[in-house]
Amino acid sequence: MSAPMQAAVSMEDAAKEAFFNTSNVWMMVCAALVFIMNLGFAAVEAGFSQTKNTVNILFKNAITPVIGILLYALVGFNLMYPGFGDVPGWFGFAGFGLTEPEGGGTLAYNAGYPYYTDFLFQAMFAATTATIVSGAVAERIKFSAYIIFTIFFVGLVYPICGSWQWGAGMVSSWGFHDFAGSTLVHSVGGWGALAGIILLGPRIGRFVGKGNPFPASNFALGTIGVFILWLGWFGFNGGSVLSSDPALTSLVLTNTTLGACAGAVGSFILATLIFKTYDYGLVLNGILAGLVGITAGADVVTPMESIYIGFIAGLIVVLAVIFLEKIKLDDVVGAVPVHLFCGVWGTLAVGIWGTDMSFIAQLKGVAVYGAAAFTASFILFAIMKYTMGIRVDAKEETEGLDVHEHGVHAYTTSLTGEIPVH
Amino acid sequence: MSAPMQAAVSMEDAAKEAFFNTSNVWMMVCAALVFIMNLGFAAVEAGFSQTKNTVNILFKNAITPVIGILLYALVGFNLMYPGFGDVPGWFGFAGFGLTEPEGGGTLAYNAGYPYYTDFLFQAMFAATTATIVSGAVAERIKFSAYIIFTIFFVGLVYPICGSWQWGAGMVSSWGFHDFAGSTLVHSVGGWGALAGIILLGPRIGRFVGKGNPFPASNFALGTIGVFILWLGWFGFNGGSVLSSDPALTSLVLTNTTLGACAGAVGSFILATLIFKTYDYGLVLNGILAGLVGITAGADVVTPMESIYIGFIAGLIVVLAVIFLEKIKLDDVVGAVPVHLFCGVWGTLAVGIWGTDMSFIAQLKGVAVYGAAAFTASFILFAIMKYTMGIRVDAKEETEGLDVHEHGVHAYTTSLTGEIPVH
Amino acid sequence: MSAPMQAAVSMEDAAKEAFFNTSNVWMMVCAALVFIMNLGFAAVEAGFSQTKNTVNILFKNAITPVIGILLYALVGFNLMYPGFGDVPGWFGFAGFGLTEPEGGGTLAYNAGYPYYTDFLFQAMFAATTATIVSGAVAERIKFSAYIIFTIFFVGLVYPICGSWQWGAGMVSSWGFHDFAGSTLVHSVGGWGALAGIILLGPRIGRFVGKGNPFPASNFALGTIGVFILWLGWFGFNGGSVLSSDPALTSLVLTNTTLGACAGAVGSFILATLIFKTYDYGLVLNGILAGLVGITAGADVVTPMESIYIGFIAGLIVVLAVIFLEKIKLDDVVGAVPVHLFCGVWGTLAVGIWGTDMSFIAQLKGVAVYGAAAFTASFILFAIMKYTMGIRVDAKEETEGLDVHEHGVHAYTTSLTGEIPVH
Repeated sequence: MSAPMQAAVSMEDAAKEAFFNTSNVWMMVCAALVFIMNLGFAAVEAGFSQTKNTVNILFKNAITPVIGILLYALVGFNLMYPGFGDVPGWFGFAGFGLTEPEGGGTLAYNAGYPYYTDFLFQAMFAATTATIVSGAVAERIKFSAYIIFTIFFVGLVYPICGSWQWGAGMVSSWGFHDFAGSTLVHSVGGWGALAGIILLGPRIGRFVGKGNPFPASNFALGTIGVFILWLGWFGFNGGSVLSSDPALTSLVLTNTTLGACAGAVGSFILATLIFKTYDYGLVLNGILAGLVGITAGADVVTPMESIYIGFIAGLIVVLAVIFLEKIKLDDVVGAVPVHLFCGVWGTLAVGIWGTDMSFIAQLKGVAVYGAAAFTASFILFAIMKYTMGIRVDAKEETEGLDVHEHGVHAYTTSLTGEIPVH
Repeated sequence: MSAPMQAAVSMEDAAKEAFFNTSNVWMMVCAALVFIMNLGFAAVEAGFSQTKNTVNILFKNAITPVIGILLYALVGFNLMYPGFGDVPGWFGFAGFGLTEPEGGGTLAYNAGYPYYTDFLFQAMFAATTATIVSGAVAERIKFSAYIIFTIFFVGLVYPICGSWQWGAGMVSSWGFHDFAGSTLVHSVGGWGALAGIILLGPRIGRFVGKGNPFPASNFALGTIGVFILWLGWFGFNGGSVLSSDPALTSLVLTNTTLGACAGAVGSFILATLIFKTYDYGLVLNGILAGLVGITAGADVVTPMESIYIGFIAGLIVVLAVIFLEKIKLDDVVGAVPVHLFCGVWGTLAVGIWGTDMSFIAQLKGVAVYGAAAFTASFILFAIMKYTMGIRVDAKEETEGLDVHEHGVHAYTTSLTGEIPVH
Repeated sequence: MSAPMQAAVSMEDAAKEAFFNTSNVWMMVCAALVFIMNLGFAAVEAGFSQTKNTVNILFKNAITPVIGILLYALVGFNLMYPGFGDVPGWFGFAGFGLTEPEGGGTLAYNAGYPYYTDFLFQAMFAATTATIVSGAVAERIKFSAYIIFTIFFVGLVYPICGSWQWGAGMVSSWGFHDFAGSTLVHSVGGWGALAGIILLGPRIGRFVGKGNPFPASNFALGTIGVFILWLGWFGFNGGSVLSSDPALTSLVLTNTTLGACAGAVGSFILATLIFKTYDYGLVLNGILAGLVGITAGADVVTPMESIYIGFIAGLIVVLAVIFLEKIKLDDVVGAVPVHLFCGVWGTLAVGIWGTDMSFIAQLKGVAVYGAAAFTASFILFAIMKYTMGIRVDAKEETEGLDVHEHGVHAYTTSLTGEIPVH
């Protein structure tokens, strides 16, 4: 090889190295942002449920990523990316534990990140999925039943379903597009939540008379949660580019932000018209609705289309909350309206506005994921319901899970440090 | 072209590409950090106002970035960067909506970021400006009046004023220097706040006897807010470098941090001397004072000068709080002392310590921005005051905006989930 | 030089520039993450102590980084990195203040970051160390005594001790390995905490009968704190790579995360077995235990070994809490179990699993740091105890430090904004 030729070759390598290094920094930042979404979920769910169950819901949201990440290291990562090869399938498993492949720390592994960053970013996604369920089933599910459900849901349901699309499995061969998980993460979590609240039944007193929504215990905490989730979504969607590609990451972040804003406006307007008051809870859920909605197509739509998608998601979440109320399904924080309804909407919206996308393929994907996630979750909850039981007894539910399951109160308002009498 | 020449040319391109990619990652991280300042403002303002108005203030701080970002996409970005060309002016408009120019995703657009990152980072700044106003006018402004003010303030006042300096307009031709917005963001917001509290008048009972400052409702929330604002300032100032230039970004972050620390020390010492107690609220405001103070010149002063600037800002904020008390202006969270007084101070400090800076130019800039922002805000608030009204009635103010405007309480302290009787 | 040769030379330079630029972005992000750990500590300590002392503990956690960073600029940085040269020693000092060396903004200074990023990242570490102490000694230490202790501890003890290892001093010549500070930060802080609680004695009523742990005042705040600390640890450990080296940073983040998860599982299992209840506080401390444990060796162990280390740290923290209870040492938030016990464990674990590491060297390092940090802290606290006094009087302790030292309550639960009567 002549000398100039050599220079050219290794210059290309140097450029790739620089891109690899910068992309990895971006992916690690995004993994950290997705991680902190766990705090976002914890705060939203604790803020919008009752004081007497605050420790319980916080505990679930703290232990969920712990379980999720460990199981993803043990089995999930290798279930989700089994290496289907040329024949996309429905199930594969690359073995237990983390085994860094030869060259896993270099761009031989991937142009955008090394092996361990790949694991970390995907593990954070896995943890998120189960967390979605916890908010819906709060205030009456047994702690032990929740833990067991989470183990199966994060350890098996999420990664196997995930493999069909992101693991280059069967669904990916249909032309289905789900950029960052409106379906794979949010609707899967939402279907799990739906199965849970159907089998659990509503909280005591929840549908007495013409409905009796229990008040949120801490709007400051709920606000902290929603803002942290929005922040985390920069990593959730931004990292789903799987590199720091400048044009695409910046478009994705802009679309994500505009979707969130439009969702808030949509729910603000509709809620004000319907309820004749400025309903803060629904505006916060409108932000989340817009974020879930834009997640499937943030890479293939324009900013203006992101506004449409987010705005409609904001309308949907208000209507879905009213609908669940009507059919007497008790979802404590609105997880089903936000993650399931808007997850489905966002996925279908890709078929409407996404360049070169097929509405039919989107519909097929939504249906397959819905059937799989709902069925698996329903069976899991049902088996537990008719064996160990999934619901706390009425006394515990009335007096609060914090005292009965954990022996503490979330807040002591006494200035002398004594536990308040309840 | 000979082969070695070719290699050299494309090597330069590769280096620029690498810089562009890394800078974009930095700018996106900074945009996320500026975004989370909205949570910081929400937490500070809710923490330092009364419990009965907590949902109202949180709601305003959640809806403000929503409105701000959408309007910035619709008109603001193109008002602020109208492309004055060679003749710097006072007004320009590049058209409605976001239109990515040819090559907007590449370094043909800018050496440090693509078009959409440019928009996103600047949109986050716009949202911040209106948020400054909300804290001052809290606890008695009508929700609808605040929303209308925000629409005009973020949609027109901020971007038009901004265009004079950052959009290469008239003020920029005078040698005025405002690195990250002590004047363009903080004092503009502060002038808006001042106009608001003059026209609103103080809260009922606020200046009875020798002054009656209402207690902060939640110091933990206020602390969360200040720390998040400090964190966000790394992006606010760090991103204002407009690239990841290593020497300059690292100097700016160091100066920012030292300014904040020195502000806390300044207010701590002065408040302890004056009030003979360790006043926590003033120390938190001292941190913010230092941050606002160092924002204009973080790129052109030394770390030691940053400490001087921050320390003096910390003294100023304490004196300004006392001064507002004396002239009976009721600023709920000290937004005018922090953002207006220290914003002006920081801008003038550039004229004192900044290399090759003109004190006269700084003074002229402060005056022009003050005249414009105060006049515009005063007119906006005055028109609303004498038409729709800007203040809630006495009953609502006494009983709390949360119950009257939103139908909820921020916190339920009851362990049974019932709304406490007030 | 021939033309191709020139191209090759400057291509190498370009690659180094790109690496320098990307690494600096990573290091600045990590500095910001370590910074926000101060909020994490504030929230954990306020959440797990009593309501009547909340403002006091928040105040300490806000002023500690202020003091820490300023002192690090003034003396600490130059005490910790004195430039021992070829003869590693026990003490060196490179002079007062920050003086950027020639080429400090370029890769002539370091391959991974400029001078000011170096300072900023290390300053954030310094601030963390003193914060560890504040949680243990809470609820009865005089505010003034805490401030004076912090000044000496952050200004002298931490950086001098730090220089022995990270400043290329004596301990570093023994083959001791402490990647990110299980010993240099956490155990040093833990030894300071231990000295403090020995000399302060327990809070009034704490060891009446068979022990009387005071209830945590705010579990939501405690949860926010732990999640923010976990997030911050990505920067704490990730930045300790001192560049954005892709393979190493991604391994370190994965190990850190798995260590945290395993710590939670360890403490969850052991606490459930011992206390027959799902103890949330101990699970949160288990997360921190795992993080402290993995900090010394996150760069030299495998992910599976990280799980072992974290799991054992989770067991240790539960046993250490019980042990302190038995010997009647009153550590309000469990700082000694988490930072001292697990810091020592993590350091020794490097000797067990770390490639090419010496258990003896680890043991020597632990002993030297323990002797130095404990002795220095004990002397500091003792001098103050027998001169100015370190403990508030019984009336103040019983009624709360917030009212007596700061004249406020942390939370007003009244809906009319009046201070609640206590």
